[in-house]
Amino acid sequence: MTSALAIADRYPTRLAGDRVPTPLPRQDPVVWGDGEGPLASDDLGTYDRDGFLSVAALVTPDEAAELLDEVHRFAKDPARRGDPRTVIEPGGDEVRSVFEVHKASDRLAEIIADGRLAGIARQLLGSDVAVHQSRINLKPGFTGKEFGWHSDFETWHAEDGMPAMRAVSISLALTANLDCNGPLMIIPGSHRTFVPCIGETPDDHYRSSLRRQQIGVPDPDAVRAQAEASGIRVLTGDPGSAVVFDSNCLHGSNSNITPFPRSNLFVVFNSVENALVDPFAATAPRPGFIADRNPVVV
Amino acid sequence: MTSALAIADRYPTRLAGDRVPTPLPRQDPVVWGDGEGPLASDDLGTYDRDGFLSVAALVTPDEAAELLDEVHRFAKDPARRGDPRTVIEPGGDEVRSVFEVHKASDRLAEIIADGRLAGIARQLLGSDVAVHQSRINLKPGFTGKEFGWHSDFETWHAEDGMPAMRAVSISLALTANLDCNGPLMIIPGSHRTFVPCIGETPDDHYRSSLRRQQIGVPDPDAVRAQAEASGIRVLTGDPGSAVVFDSNCLHGSNSNITPFPRSNLFVVFNSVENALVDPFAATAPRPGFIADRNPVVV
Repeated sequence: MTSALAIADRYPTRLAGDRVPTPLPRQDPVVWGDGEGPLASDDLGTYDRDGFLSVAALVTPDEAAELLDEVHRFAKDPARRGDPRTVIEPGGDEVRSVFEVHKASDRLAEIIADGRLAGIARQLLGSDVAVHQSRINLKPGFTGKEFGWHSDFETWHAEDGMPAMRAVSISLALTANLDCNGPLMIIPGSHRTFVPCIGETPDDHYRSSLRRQQIGVPDPDAVRAQAEASGIRVLTGDPGSAVVFDSNCLHGSNSNITPFPRSNLFVVFNSVENALVDPFAATAPRPGFIADRNPVVV
Repeated sequence: MTSALAIADRYPTRLAGDRVPTPLPRQDPVVWGDGEGPLASDDLGTYDRDGFLSVAALVTPDEAAELLDEVHRFAKDPARRGDPRTVIEPGGDEVRSVFEVHKASDRLAEIIADGRLAGIARQLLGSDVAVHQSRINLKPGFTGKEFGWHSDFETWHAEDGMPAMRAVSISLALTANLDCNGPLMIIPGSHRTFVPCIGETPDDHYRSSLRRQQIGVPDPDAVRAQAEASGIRVLTGDPGSAVVFDSNCLHGSNSNITPFPRSNLFVVFNSVENALVDPFAATAPRPGFIADRNPVVV
């Protein structure tokens, strides 16, 4: 493992004290490489400008249905309930997320490595890519709680030691993502600003933060300023659709009181040229099932 | 007060035990009276069929802005913090709702009695009307929590002794109700079925239920059946727009993680021919600020 001391921290965060830190401009490209791959040049332009791209049919409806069956087998398996990779809804007993699914399911590993997903990641990141994290987010009907506003990169940098903004997430809809069941929301253009968070990271922070994030949340005034300037995009889509989004987008989702579960497969691809080092703002790295330090290259 | 014993309970609910009760057909008209009033006949048809009506500009944007100022004076007044009419967000310290605003603000009383609001209620209910309840729902940015799926009539019947489905609610948008900030959601046509709730009403139930409803919630399978058959309507609108909805609509709203508060004035008009009697399924009526037993006729 490379020491973080050898790599300058271009994105300081989780600062002690209660001074609100100033947002910083992004220090990295958004689209890396020469643009060869499955996405058209217009799509690359949209991704570069907004930080995300909505794809209507990344896999077929039949594939989405089959993947959802596989996900339900996971979520309902009593043997997985006590596993640290399984996260339960706050205040409830339904499964909220299951992590590291690409190592537990051949079918999910296969779709993640498929050129339609991994090929987009290679194109955007301009290199080979590895699976930094995979999970299923179930957001069950009636009880699914919100994911508060955050930049994934802020956490991956602070707690996992990811040096650069050279990672991309793909959220693949396995059920319909409707305007009523807590769909993903993104502030367009927010990937161009790094919003540092207040407060030092407590030990074993991930145990609570995966259920409900309380430390390492961005300054509300910084979020408000960006949302007022650029608005908020609500990303709906049929099963099989996907949202491809930069690691530094400010995003989140509301709760889901409807009877319709909003269940997605979520994969983070990191460039092989952006390997994790020591955490930039935590005493120890998080477990491998959340941030893989020996990731599978796909 | 008339005894409930003198009035047949056509909508039994809050039954002891854990048997799931069977939904019952509505026993009352939806549109009462002869249809004279501010709504066009097409609008009456929509209301009769769906149980609600979306009105694009019930008051002007300037009036909405002025009413919002009045609401903020209420919400920010430290003298009101300890008042039982002020409800704080669960798990937070921001004001969620303030009840009985028509008795505390001349300006809010005036808009509630305005023909644009009270006139619609008189037209739909076919009689003079009185203010059963008024409140402001602030749903603050970042921290606003969901209102779970429910029929208001179920509570008003069980806990307040409202005999018939002859009341109408108007939710007037004072800020933009967006697809992203936890807007009102209604299942169209749900007003035609009464979904009884499981579990007897505990004493002083209102103290917790106004923050987060846990007893007297409808059977999830009944909600799912209706939502799968009829879908869910997400009701967005600019400041000054309103949703007019029947007392028995199944409705609710998701949380609000966005920076944009979703603040509405909410008024319930009850027919003067539908005066409250003893509660049908509670040991004592709720306080007058939630369900006025000597209501103001407007």
